Amino acid sequence: MKPDNTIVPVASAMVGGPKLVLCGGPCSVEDRDQILASARAVKAAGGQLLRGGAYKPRTSPYAFQGLAVDGLKLLEEARAETGLGIVTEAIDVETFDLVERVADCIQIGARNMQNFSLLRRAGRARKPVLLKRGMSSTLEELLMAAEYILSEGNYHVILCERGVRTFADHTRNTLDLSVVPAVQALSHLPIIVDPSHGTGKRDKVHPMALAAVAAGASGLIVEVHPSPDRALSDGFQSLYPGQFTALAADCRALWDLLRERKNATL
Amino acid sequence: MKPDNTIVPVASAMVGGPKLVLCGGPCSVEDRDQILASARAVKAAGGQLLRGGAYKPRTSPYAFQGLAVDGLKLLEEARAETGLGIVTEAIDVETFDLVERVADCIQIGARNMQNFSLLRRAGRARKPVLLKRGMSSTLEELLMAAEYILSEGNYHVILCERGVRTFADHTRNTLDLSVVPAVQALSHLPIIVDPSHGTGKRDKVHPMALAAVAAGASGLIVEVHPSPDRALSDGFQSLYPGQFTALAADCRALWDLLRERKNATL
Amino acid sequence: MKPDNTIVPVASAMVGGPKLVLCGGPCSVEDRDQILASARAVKAAGGQLLRGGAYKPRTSPYAFQGLAVDGLKLLEEARAETGLGIVTEAIDVETFDLVERVADCIQIGARNMQNFSLLRRAGRARKPVLLKRGMSSTLEELLMAAEYILSEGNYHVILCERGVRTFADHTRNTLDLSVVPAVQALSHLPIIVDPSHGTGKRDKVHPMALAAVAAGASGLIVEVHPSPDRALSDGFQSLYPGQFTALAADCRALWDLLRERKNATL
Amino acid sequence: MKPDNTIVPVASAMVGGPKLVLCGGPCSVEDRDQILASARAVKAAGGQLLRGGAYKPRTSPYAFQGLAVDGLKLLEEARAETGLGIVTEAIDVETFDLVERVADCIQIGARNMQNFSLLRRAGRARKPVLLKRGMSSTLEELLMAAEYILSEGNYHVILCERGVRTFADHTRNTLDLSVVPAVQALSHLPIIVDPSHGTGKRDKVHPMALAAVAAGASGLIVEVHPSPDRALSDGFQSLYPGQFTALAADCRALWDLLRERKNATL
Repeated sequence: MKPDNTIVPVASAMVGGPKLVLCGGPCSVEDRDQILASARAVKAAGGQLLRGGAYKPRTSPYAFQGLAVDGLKLLEEARAETGLGIVTEAIDVETFDLVERVADCIQIGARNMQNFSLLRRAGRARKPVLLKRGMSSTLEELLMAAEYILSEGNYHVILCERGVRTFADHTRNTLDLSVVPAVQALSHLPIIVDPSHGTGKRDKVHPMALAAVAAGASGLIVEVHPSPDRALSDGFQSLYPGQFTALAADCRALWDLLRERKNATL
Repeated sequence: MKPDNTIVPVASAMVGGPKLVLCGGPCSVEDRDQILASARAVKAAGGQLLRGGAYKPRTSPYAFQGLAVDGLKLLEEARAETGLGIVTEAIDVETFDLVERVADCIQIGARNMQNFSLLRRAGRARKPVLLKRGMSSTLEELLMAAEYILSEGNYHVILCERGVRTFADHTRNTLDLSVVPAVQALSHLPIIVDPSHGTGKRDKVHPMALAAVAAGASGLIVEVHPSPDRALSDGFQSLYPGQFTALAADCRALWDLLRERKNATL
Repeated sequence: MKPDNTIVPVASAMVGGPKLVLCGGPCSVEDRDQILASARAVKAAGGQLLRGGAYKPRTSPYAFQGLAVDGLKLLEEARAETGLGIVTEAIDVETFDLVERVADCIQIGARNMQNFSLLRRAGRARKPVLLKRGMSSTLEELLMAAEYILSEGNYHVILCERGVRTFADHTRNTLDLSVVPAVQALSHLPIIVDPSHGTGKRDKVHPMALAAVAAGASGLIVEVHPSPDRALSDGFQSLYPGQFTALAADCRALWDLLRERKNATL
Repeated sequence: MKPDNTIVPVASAMVGGPKLVLCGGPCSVEDRDQILASARAVKAAGGQLLRGGAYKPRTSPYAFQGLAVDGLKLLEEARAETGLGIVTEAIDVETFDLVERVADCIQIGARNMQNFSLLRRAGRARKPVLLKRGMSSTLEELLMAAEYILSEGNYHVILCERGVRTFADHTRNTLDLSVVPAVQALSHLPIIVDPSHGTGKRDKVHPMALAAVAAGASGLIVEVHPSPDRALSDGFQSLYPGQFTALAADCRALWDLLRERKNATL
């Protein structure tokens, strides 16, 4: 339809393509049972990608920092069992190789959106990159951060809106969905939305996921956990598996409707 | 469905009820041709309500301040011809009576969200009130502003998200759609969304209108003008009539889909 | 020194003139003992102006709304005893006459910065006006709000920075002192600073008052209460009388130093 | 005086000690003439530290990225001639060793405030660290970022306020001076202020430098350039040498006054 737009293949998913891309999974990989249960739930809901951090950038040095290499191994196991593609974060150049080996898509987190050495390293990776918008990043800064990756030769960049910092206190961040059409007007890169960090509240994830699809996002990245109340991080914003199934079904129905109407107009 | 939620009747529209409410029209009433052409366009698109300011709160004292009583008369004419309900702003207690006489719904603008004397006067009005969220209002402040109206005995209050002030510069304001489910969790009052002021850019209005409906808004208030390039105010964010027709059709289709799915779940 | 800058006389104070102007007093007038004790404390500290609200714009309709006319009478008493000029807020056109009769300077609060009917009324008043910057007002909007007053013929306008809304949570508002030199570069009007609302925390008032003077503010408006812990509003940000005395002495010493150095440079 | 507060020695300066610390210099080291002229100007004005970036974190990958090792060598030359201590930025772990060898104080920039691997590396450095507050960092996040450095054994951490992102457009960032007393209430670490990035406008640097000292900052870091109009970066916010001399003199006079008054109170 839009021959100029970049479609980024991640495992079986084509981000920016004709199907809605759904990525789900826990904030952090915690143990085998947790990640396998999460992966099965995502798979069962029709998701194509599994998220989960092995290396976690945490505000406090005393908080859980992720399982590191052990986490990566568990992600490989989850992929082997379910066939889901793996999206996991690289937090520094030192551990980048390890992440690159395992990931189907390497996430650069919001705090690292202007970690230019990390962006350059991602630009030399042979895997697609999911670049999250910084907490107070302008659109121009986001596109320039992507340019750091592109300029090193990696054209497989997916942008991600995950909420910005404002005075508003009814959500953890303010999800700025207008950046979705704004990116689409200026850039050929696909953009997805993270309604979990974007709201920070479990009961706001479903409506804002629908809103993101309606605004034109190519996909969603959503926190899902088999037992959110026992999660080591972000439990309050993680969906129960059943909630993710419902979200996925509603969002796909919405996607199909909007696509049909767009095709009918052409 | 939700027996506790308030449904606010405005002319033929039931805000918070089973049908999506669409309100369209120019920023300001400028002349007979302009407001009648706008009203016909809104009517033709299936809208129920006509917006248009006769009294305009403008940043500069030297900017066009509205046609005042003459504007109100033109709104009456437009209603007489099209049957649309009239939504128009009251900016002070002095001119409130005049507005109240003509309006089917009295708008309190974002700048006046904490003009408590005006809120109290609106609380004594016999017409429904559309209360816009202030530019840096928290959810609690918005609900407390509504409480000023309710506490005087007027229970017909419609809330409206119209964007908040942030650092982001790709839109005029940042449309905070998460406030829609947040209001619905805390209040019985219906909430609609203004994607025109919420983005300040014509090409962002359609996607954000869809997003607002997906997030659960009960209606939309959208700027439409027969010749946006010649508008005396807000032309850059006003839709052409054909664009409003497309927006209305897409949003209704989305509304119907979401309603069907919700009913199927129950 | 600066022949073009406006100096606004308020009782014995010349705002924008060669002496630092200090205005102190409680958030609200609560009773005779409280306002007289406050006035004496302000007078003893060398302040020229007494602040105190008789009409209070409160977020909740159920909060204390001020003593109204009784409050104005108590302010007159305090003036009669101490000779301090009275700065008190007008919140609507209806009660404006009453406030104008008593006040030496009429305050327009942050929530009313774009209440244009109130601004126009203030422009027809025969008393100076203290115009507080709105919580998310740009510099241009502040100057345009002042223009509403000036354009009606009242040239005695004092601007006031009182903090803006941001994501930062270590203070109630973020005091934007850079607006002081920014106003001075663009406007002839004097600007003062409110470090009480600007920080919302008693222990931050003294350092930020000093910072305001250093940034070039012509004066300070500070909340002082004889028993902050029993205040009906804003107690947590009100100074004890002894703290105000110390603040006043430090700020005057700083003012004198900066003035001496400026004169020596000329 | 304050036995519990940390004093961080950087070359001849004692940050957090009894003397105001002044650090000046260009945004980037550009060439020998430029950095030597800058250093002489800072020295002549009584500054103790020279700032200047050899590695520059730039929004665009196509902008000037700094002279790297050649820049570090020029900084060494400037130190050899003037005796000023060198403050220069480390942007990644890869080039950290080179920076650590030359710097008297290693700067971690605002964009890297939550680059936790870099913070940990700084925690293992044998040089003091200047940690700049991120553009939308809360106070708690700033202190937690410092904790990443402290927890690795480096207790010589200096915090720096450099402005935060808000809606306000009269300055490049909004300088949040209230964070100075807020840090002092919660932490033993010294805090300095950068009024150059904090305002982004040359004519606002002097008043905001004074305000920072009045708010209690232990020092200032200011951009100075021999020919700001020809600067490769940040020229519009860099002072001319004569302006820095005036700023330094005024700030020292203010510092001395406040110190005297504090001592007199004890």
